Amino acid sequence: MSQLEIFKVALDEEIGQHSYGSEPAELYEPIRYLMDLQGKRLRPMLAVLSTYLFTDHWQQVLKPAHAVEVFHNFTLMHDDIMDHAPLRRGMPTVHEKWNENTAILSGDVMLVQAYELFLGLSPDILPQVLKRFNKTASEVCEGQQLDMNFEKMREVSIADYINMIRLKTSVLLGFSMELGGWAGRAEQPVVEALYAAGENMGLGFQIKDDLLDVYGDPGKFGKQIGGDILSDKKTFLYLKALELADTAQKEELTSLFSDSEPDSALKVKRVTGIYNALGIKEIAEEEVKKYFEKAIGTIRELSAPDDRKRVLLSFVNQLWAREK
Amino acid sequence: MSQLEIFKVALDEEIGQHSYGSEPAELYEPIRYLMDLQGKRLRPMLAVLSTYLFTDHWQQVLKPAHAVEVFHNFTLMHDDIMDHAPLRRGMPTVHEKWNENTAILSGDVMLVQAYELFLGLSPDILPQVLKRFNKTASEVCEGQQLDMNFEKMREVSIADYINMIRLKTSVLLGFSMELGGWAGRAEQPVVEALYAAGENMGLGFQIKDDLLDVYGDPGKFGKQIGGDILSDKKTFLYLKALELADTAQKEELTSLFSDSEPDSALKVKRVTGIYNALGIKEIAEEEVKKYFEKAIGTIRELSAPDDRKRVLLSFVNQLWAREK
Repeated sequence: MSQLEIFKVALDEEIGQHSYGSEPAELYEPIRYLMDLQGKRLRPMLAVLSTYLFTDHWQQVLKPAHAVEVFHNFTLMHDDIMDHAPLRRGMPTVHEKWNENTAILSGDVMLVQAYELFLGLSPDILPQVLKRFNKTASEVCEGQQLDMNFEKMREVSIADYINMIRLKTSVLLGFSMELGGWAGRAEQPVVEALYAAGENMGLGFQIKDDLLDVYGDPGKFGKQIGGDILSDKKTFLYLKALELADTAQKEELTSLFSDSEPDSALKVKRVTGIYNALGIKEIAEEEVKKYFEKAIGTIRELSAPDDRKRVLLSFVNQLWAREK
Repeated sequence: MSQLEIFKVALDEEIGQHSYGSEPAELYEPIRYLMDLQGKRLRPMLAVLSTYLFTDHWQQVLKPAHAVEVFHNFTLMHDDIMDHAPLRRGMPTVHEKWNENTAILSGDVMLVQAYELFLGLSPDILPQVLKRFNKTASEVCEGQQLDMNFEKMREVSIADYINMIRLKTSVLLGFSMELGGWAGRAEQPVVEALYAAGENMGLGFQIKDDLLDVYGDPGKFGKQIGGDILSDKKTFLYLKALELADTAQKEELTSLFSDSEPDSALKVKRVTGIYNALGIKEIAEEEVKKYFEKAIGTIRELSAPDDRKRVLLSFVNQLWAREK
């Protein structure tokens, strides 16, 4: 097994064999259900990879890495209620499979469980890690609130958008790497560099997501192509297109995004046509490249063994190149 | 000022002057709104009173006591969504005043803030206090789930009911006193005794609540008299009445609780009539007395100065005698 596979197996075992509780079943079954839908385990992998930069004892970060994954899935459970999402990773969301009350309460207990898993940390670093996690968790909520606010706003700038995805997505990737650094007993400036790398990676990751939604390979990408367009989501692609559009294109785009086109295939086709005419794909790819290259540059400069950095960098490159 | 008033003022200042955050406003305004509705501050008072048993430095428990109050209000914010409650302490609930998504997300960030306030604890006791808090918080969620399950169940035993209110209400009162003990550096057996006292007090407190709903003075009790009857809530009074009722009374009671009587004043009157015929008021008062006396007995036996115990006992007696 490659080092990456070793970490993945260890994380799957840590997460798969954990009991989140049993009674009442309505409270605990949805947690296991959602955790078993098998996401990328991106955040805990980043934590483990970051600890491994500094020590062979990367197993010590498994529980707090698990905590981050539980927290992430808690946000998915609650966001799916707020977004009225019927599906998550191709399966019914918790509020659809059970009901809204269950999704609220089961999510609440997940957040408590995330904090419980953090108690796996050594007591000497526990307070500072929790302080940073609390800040991160609050920011993730702020990002979700901004995301909902943007739906109702006519004008959203690209800077607003970047700030929103930074809060909603990037800070947790940054925290995951920072956590790995603390667990590996790295010095404060190193830990801050890890956070910065994760934050940039997160921005690249989200814009890549926006790109895949429109230009992904339907056979590989797990979700419906054009899903963001159909739900009038103000993505990087849309906001950049609005910025570069001439008067006619701008009118067409805003009109399409206020549901003037009832035929969904045609709506996706027409919006994609404007994106193509403006070269949005290439611009977004440049943006993704910019953020990933920043993250990679920061990781290269870390004072850690080169072979360890290579493991982390191979993971980062996989994320950059991902097609799903 | 009496010692109780000194504590109340200190808590009001700790809670009133704290900033829970500002932007985005939709996320943070509901927290301040709910915290300012001025509940009894029962839980933080119990924490402060318990610390004061052992030390003059009771101020050290203000932040973690505040954490418990934030947690309690977080559960109210989410429970009110689940129960479709329009009012809380006579004012619109958060999901009514704003909307459901706001109440979900603002509640989530409250739970994070509760954990942040716990970081005010000394690092040497932080891990064990958080471990106990996590267990308590999970149990409170379990209690809420059981409460919702009971609504749909035909048969609920008194033992089931006591277990539900123990989880939903009592364990947090127990934890508040335990927290006070830890902060006052009490020994493990003393801390356990404090928890037991809080747990019994919580059971007495909830059954007293059930009593006030039916037999409270409308001029003093903040809520509508008979509210539990109108919402077919399976309280101690109802379950005890079902247990003692003859066949005719049992039929009338179950029929009234399945909305056979559309006139709400008449429904309350008829149910209360059955309670009166069965002497339910006196039985419930005995039950309240039993639990409060257990709590008081435990507190009396604690090895702490008598004058300190008297302050705590005067507060406990106020709770027992409360009319609102």
